[in-house]
Amino acid sequence: MSSSLPPPSYHSHHAPFGAFASFTLGLNGGGGGFGQSLRGPATQQVYVGCRRAGQDSWSLLPFSSPPAAPADAAHAYTGEEAETSVTSRPAPFRVIDAGEVQRSLGLASDTWTHGDLVFRLLTPFERTEDPVGFDAATGRRVLAPLVSAELAFDNTSGADDVELLFGLGQTERAWRPLGDSDPSLAGFAGGPAAGFATPAAGEVRPVQGFTLFAPTPLDHRGLHQLGAECGLVFRVRAGEHRTFPLALGFYQAGPVCTGLVAEFLYTRYFTDLEDVLQHGLATHDERAAMAATRDAELAASALDEDRRFLIAQAVHSYFGSTQLMVREDRPLWIVNEGEYRMMNTFDLTVDHLFFELAWHPWAVRHALDLFVEHYSYHDSLHRPDGRTAPGGLSFTHDMGVMCHFSPPGHSSYECTNLAGCFSHMTMEQLVNWVLCAVTYAADTDDETWLSARRSTLDACAASLRQRDDPDPVQRDGILKWDSDRCGPRGREITTYDSLDVSLGQAANNLYLAVKTLAAWHLLARAYARLGDPGAAAAARAHAELLTTTLNAKWEPNSGCFPAVFEAGNRARLIPAVEGLVFLTYLDDDALRQPSPALTQLLQRLETHLTRILQPGRCLDAQTGAWKLSSTSTNTWFRKIALCRHV
Amino acid sequence: MSSSLPPPSYHSHHAPFGAFASFTLGLNGGGGGFGQSLRGPATQQVYVGCRRAGQDSWSLLPFSSPPAAPADAAHAYTGEEAETSVTSRPAPFRVIDAGEVQRSLGLASDTWTHGDLVFRLLTPFERTEDPVGFDAATGRRVLAPLVSAELAFDNTSGADDVELLFGLGQTERAWRPLGDSDPSLAGFAGGPAAGFATPAAGEVRPVQGFTLFAPTPLDHRGLHQLGAECGLVFRVRAGEHRTFPLALGFYQAGPVCTGLVAEFLYTRYFTDLEDVLQHGLATHDERAAMAATRDAELAASALDEDRRFLIAQAVHSYFGSTQLMVREDRPLWIVNEGEYRMMNTFDLTVDHLFFELAWHPWAVRHALDLFVEHYSYHDSLHRPDGRTAPGGLSFTHDMGVMCHFSPPGHSSYECTNLAGCFSHMTMEQLVNWVLCAVTYAADTDDETWLSARRSTLDACAASLRQRDDPDPVQRDGILKWDSDRCGPRGREITTYDSLDVSLGQAANNLYLAVKTLAAWHLLARAYARLGDPGAAAAARAHAELLTTTLNAKWEPNSGCFPAVFEAGNRARLIPAVEGLVFLTYLDDDALRQPSPALTQLLQRLETHLTRILQPGRCLDAQTGAWKLSSTSTNTWFRKIALCRHV
Repeated sequence: MSSSLPPPSYHSHHAPFGAFASFTLGLNGGGGGFGQSLRGPATQQVYVGCRRAGQDSWSLLPFSSPPAAPADAAHAYTGEEAETSVTSRPAPFRVIDAGEVQRSLGLASDTWTHGDLVFRLLTPFERTEDPVGFDAATGRRVLAPLVSAELAFDNTSGADDVELLFGLGQTERAWRPLGDSDPSLAGFAGGPAAGFATPAAGEVRPVQGFTLFAPTPLDHRGLHQLGAECGLVFRVRAGEHRTFPLALGFYQAGPVCTGLVAEFLYTRYFTDLEDVLQHGLATHDERAAMAATRDAELAASALDEDRRFLIAQAVHSYFGSTQLMVREDRPLWIVNEGEYRMMNTFDLTVDHLFFELAWHPWAVRHALDLFVEHYSYHDSLHRPDGRTAPGGLSFTHDMGVMCHFSPPGHSSYECTNLAGCFSHMTMEQLVNWVLCAVTYAADTDDETWLSARRSTLDACAASLRQRDDPDPVQRDGILKWDSDRCGPRGREITTYDSLDVSLGQAANNLYLAVKTLAAWHLLARAYARLGDPGAAAAARAHAELLTTTLNAKWEPNSGCFPAVFEAGNRARLIPAVEGLVFLTYLDDDALRQPSPALTQLLQRLETHLTRILQPGRCLDAQTGAWKLSSTSTNTWFRKIALCRHV
Repeated sequence: MSSSLPPPSYHSHHAPFGAFASFTLGLNGGGGGFGQSLRGPATQQVYVGCRRAGQDSWSLLPFSSPPAAPADAAHAYTGEEAETSVTSRPAPFRVIDAGEVQRSLGLASDTWTHGDLVFRLLTPFERTEDPVGFDAATGRRVLAPLVSAELAFDNTSGADDVELLFGLGQTERAWRPLGDSDPSLAGFAGGPAAGFATPAAGEVRPVQGFTLFAPTPLDHRGLHQLGAECGLVFRVRAGEHRTFPLALGFYQAGPVCTGLVAEFLYTRYFTDLEDVLQHGLATHDERAAMAATRDAELAASALDEDRRFLIAQAVHSYFGSTQLMVREDRPLWIVNEGEYRMMNTFDLTVDHLFFELAWHPWAVRHALDLFVEHYSYHDSLHRPDGRTAPGGLSFTHDMGVMCHFSPPGHSSYECTNLAGCFSHMTMEQLVNWVLCAVTYAADTDDETWLSARRSTLDACAASLRQRDDPDPVQRDGILKWDSDRCGPRGREITTYDSLDVSLGQAANNLYLAVKTLAAWHLLARAYARLGDPGAAAAARAHAELLTTTLNAKWEPNSGCFPAVFEAGNRARLIPAVEGLVFLTYLDDDALRQPSPALTQLLQRLETHLTRILQPGRCLDAQTGAWKLSSTSTNTWFRKIALCRHV
């Protein structure tokens, strides 16, 4: 299947753990570089390449982005008369054709190879324990806000010395030579916030000027601090095979988050950018080995090459969205929602739950606790016909946006009097808390925490029942009431806010009903574990009620379930099965010894999937790709992955 | 002369003292807003306007910059299906025609008037003492990193309520409602760094959404935190005349400068942005009164309207370039060089010397001390014929760039082996230190400081003599040697680096020779004051020698001095007289009782000026404007102002 892999021109995040930072690179001609908490890639020029020492023009890897008019920056100083003294000759570089480069994205690496030249970005990560208990060494190892890199050239059979270049450019930063503050470092930093370094040595030469590719004024050190382009030139002698380490570091001091005022936790373990860079170089080999281990783990998986690529790219992006802060001496965990930068969006928390349980399960618990302590609320309910009722506990869609925590009990996203995007997701987030909490506790055997959160579990169960119907006689397991938070003209939606109504509406929704079924089975599991067989039985009974209700929604003629149990809706959903992922993940008894009703439901869901995975329905007519809904072409990879797993 | 005033479409800095920040505004359609340490104006949407309450479309002042497609920001969330729910109707605003608005720029204010609507930005400043001695109240008053504003409407004869709008937009910031952190404030902040506020009150309503001019989803408070546009809507009832105060604040915590690590001094007096905004509102009347006093002082001057405008605009820009930091508990004073952002560029320090002596004379002393302590050097000398000699003391062109202090003894600007832009300005900065130091000490009667700097004065005098010629017999007062810092192929230049050679070359330069003459007279004055008549007489003797030499350069046929005493140069310079400004400013004895030689030189310079101020020479043939050199069209306002004063 390698033929379907993308060409090597795509951006990837290369990100430390919890720094909400990325050295983004990879799109041909796209540059990128150091980005701190950005919506998209940074906009620096990035140059990586090689040449015969001092002779040939530079051959630059395809992501390099030399500006069309490199001497423009100098004109601002020289004015009318002196332009000729610093303008460029024909630029002495060529950008290597994409076809001459191999790129390989690993779980913790990204490697470009062109002949004897290899450039590699390394983003090692490891399974971590709760940072509350970090000692200094662990804190520095896990939280170092840096990406490692290697620039290598095999010149063993070469007759001439070769020079390698790693360079950056951005006019809005003053690039300071790091040797000024630390003579053991060769490299440059943009203010206190980001920079790159290698150990100062005879074979490395810092360069800086208005351009790296044309004559430029030079000071006593051979640099020019006014120049917005800077880099390192490494010399590989004929007969040598050299690999040069680089540290690409970030540092942001002081309050970063508002609402809940918080700073980066790594500032408790590193004094400044230079400290970060020194750490990166001192531990380079260890970091490279850790990255290689991660790469090998993915390579050894049974997944095909396409899926390995998708997982690697997703993991790179995930780390670029992680943000581990400290507030009042307690760690504060945030995952930002990609370009939207909403914080701890709950309907994403529940999806990357499985990844976090594998690598930093404490993060799930931190997020759940923060939802309980700051981002939970109690509401009241209404139905479209005007009836009202008390509500119950639920949780906000997110905790804020772009480093600003929204007020307690409120998200940045949810608005009133809407029936689509930006409405409330009260039921969905209630279900998500239950699913995350029980899955976390079961997976980590953290019974202490589960026990301490017993009252929250009880409140969740009561709230689920109330949203089914306040009158026990009327209950069938399915959400039928809307939160008053939606306002009189609004209705609750699901996480699938930008798909059509088949996934957008919460009440009477097939996707949410199956997810709710999973929540009841997990509640039963939790109560059993907590030694409350009565509560467990009641939860199981509600699950059974819901199962029976769902079986009654079956359309024997079509062999499918409708997407919404209302108004003759005929849309078909793949995420009908999404909720089952929690039961399969935990190998839950409910699946191992299913009741007759559940056995029937599972069979029918299988039939449902078989019927809808047809071209023109939930397979795209052109590409054969999975479509979440038969009536929408929008798609999200994380949801496809969950449903495929099921 | 008011007909020659610019139309009201131009950007102005509106800046606190020492915060290297500006709320830049004024270019029609240009937006602007909060800029921290930027090269140019910020890129926020800015909206100021009025409408009949809830009825008419908004009438926006011409600098407002509504985006063409206001709902674009929402599309990123809503995807394919839901676009129609938030896209805009025809935008309910009109931008007022520039001809219907009066704008008036004062020394400490900027006012737009359209009918009954008045919008005013206030940037009060006062004469200050050394911040080393600031108590808390003085520190808060002087250093508050904020701009005040007023939005007023005279609705006394109106039949309907009127609404006023102050709004901003920028997608790269999360605008947080300030009421979340401080219920007494109505307004918004972009992270911890910048924001605007007015006292929370019934007649003011915060608004926030994807656009301020079309339907947008709203949360429980009637805001939407995901929206990148935010503002305040004020209500003025029929029959009322209301003026609403606004505080526009900045706050940047933590290390800002590198090289010499330093933080903003205001962070010692304010805890955060909210503190700044509260201070601005609490002291609004006092600040407005101070601004009015400054405005009245300029209005009362004898200068014509054009010159008052140029001074006001220059003062606004100057404050936007000031940066008062703290390093190791000592204040650290920086003036940034406009768009170049070089720090304490010495050939600018000497030009805004007179303004600083009037308002914050301690800043001159701080800069001079920092030049001595960190940015002085001793060089050696050479002549183009290859002769070499020991040099002496001088000072760097600047102290760094974009908040990065360059290494001690080195500037960010000066490079080697150049004969034009980016070469060294060794002689020019040496002269500048003498001129600044003696003028400061004379103007402030700070004999203590002058006495403490006696050894520096001596070293300057020795260095001046050495650069004339190491052999006393060869001296004629004029610079003939170049610093070895220029490298073997380079030559010293003057501050006029981007003009042609008539001002660019330092050796044998008329402009620099007259400035040197002033330096010798000021040295004589300083030594006399320090009670050393011998040194004073020696300095006067060197001045007399230089005067005689200059008289010998006179061209009786043309009635002019050549710009450069070399190679038959025929260019003509207005700045021939620039150096005299120091003697006129101090009403120096040298001018009051001139020697016969100086009397002759002054007469000849007067003739020189008369002859060159002719169209096609140093008057622009089209506009009649002054040209610094007859052979260049480049010009700098600060230099024209100095020469006009002389």
